[in-house]
Amino acid sequence: MARNKYPEETVNLILETATRLFVQKGYEHTSIQDIINNLGGLSKGAIYHHFKSKEEILVAVTNRLAEESNKKLFEIKNRTDMTGLEKLKKLLTDSLNRPVHDSIFSAAPNIKSSPALVYSILMESVDTVAHQDVLPIIRQGIEDGSIQVEYPEELAELVMLVGNIWLNPMIFDDNPDGIYRKCVMYDKMLRGFGLDIFDESMFERFRRLTEMYCKNK
Amino acid sequence: MARNKYPEETVNLILETATRLFVQKGYEHTSIQDIINNLGGLSKGAIYHHFKSKEEILVAVTNRLAEESNKKLFEIKNRTDMTGLEKLKKLLTDSLNRPVHDSIFSAAPNIKSSPALVYSILMESVDTVAHQDVLPIIRQGIEDGSIQVEYPEELAELVMLVGNIWLNPMIFDDNPDGIYRKCVMYDKMLRGFGLDIFDESMFERFRRLTEMYCKNK
Repeated sequence: MARNKYPEETVNLILETATRLFVQKGYEHTSIQDIINNLGGLSKGAIYHHFKSKEEILVAVTNRLAEESNKKLFEIKNRTDMTGLEKLKKLLTDSLNRPVHDSIFSAAPNIKSSPALVYSILMESVDTVAHQDVLPIIRQGIEDGSIQVEYPEELAELVMLVGNIWLNPMIFDDNPDGIYRKCVMYDKMLRGFGLDIFDESMFERFRRLTEMYCKNK
Repeated sequence: MARNKYPEETVNLILETATRLFVQKGYEHTSIQDIINNLGGLSKGAIYHHFKSKEEILVAVTNRLAEESNKKLFEIKNRTDMTGLEKLKKLLTDSLNRPVHDSIFSAAPNIKSSPALVYSILMESVDTVAHQDVLPIIRQGIEDGSIQVEYPEELAELVMLVGNIWLNPMIFDDNPDGIYRKCVMYDKMLRGFGLDIFDESMFERFRRLTEMYCKNK
């Protein structure tokens, strides 16, 4: 394959190839050399020009998968047939059920040993997603009376911090039983804030994703 | 000053000098060269032999300050004149009131821009401190009836995740009003788990530490 003329295309090619290999072989079992071998003649220099390490590629892959998938979630916010509380429940359910999660959890990257990736997920969840996606829905819930809370921004951050960081088995290397116990505590925390949004199917999905992760790690 | 014969002494000298400069000048305004200039003739090579960057020195300084200070907190666990719930409240109060916090928050390191440090504090809090220090006290509380909880390990982790990460103004660049709102939500969360341990003095201390951080950042 001829070398790409445009840097953006090169980056896309690297990320698509890396995503495919991470999912097929697992992140830990994919080397930078494997990625280079599958780039159709792109040089080692070209890849290092864009990414300093395999970890940097993983951060970019994860961010890209999340971005694509987030677009759909954004649409929930604009629906007019649901209360804020119902939307919040749908946001959590849809987010959890995204097919992209099956790929990520099966690739089972050892996130725990990657400070840059843990940091990136933490900041993305608490600083960005909480304010962009969760907060507007909580505000709608306050307006329509389905959610009562004094500090909506802080509630949005807590929902993301606990639901997206603590409940990520790849960050804290959880097993299915541990994730079940975390779900019980998360549900209890949410109910304490008047949010009855966690149901049986979410327990099941968390357990299933954790099983995938444990099987492939 | 003659060069240290023993690597441990060299590391101690570097860390003590760095701590002093971070507190005096602030982390952001201290360069590696400043540290070298204050090492009494120790070479640039010697410092880079032990630490690859200023950020690595900060991680080591923070860990060392925390370790020294944690030793005192460990003693609470063995007291026989308090219930588990009372001990948990004392652990939080004493931890928050440690003088070392005044130094750290005044140095106002820009933790937010340091993935390695955020990661280190997150894992130390949720994996280590939660299980070593908070969990035994919660178990005592369950035994003496002052705490009721189905999953003590997960409660210990939540107490640390929210109290030590989310409520750290240096990680999320909070201002005093924002920290007050987070305190209200943390208190509400703890009460939801039956833990009435957050009092007025803790609100004040969180606000004061955040003011120090904001003033010096």
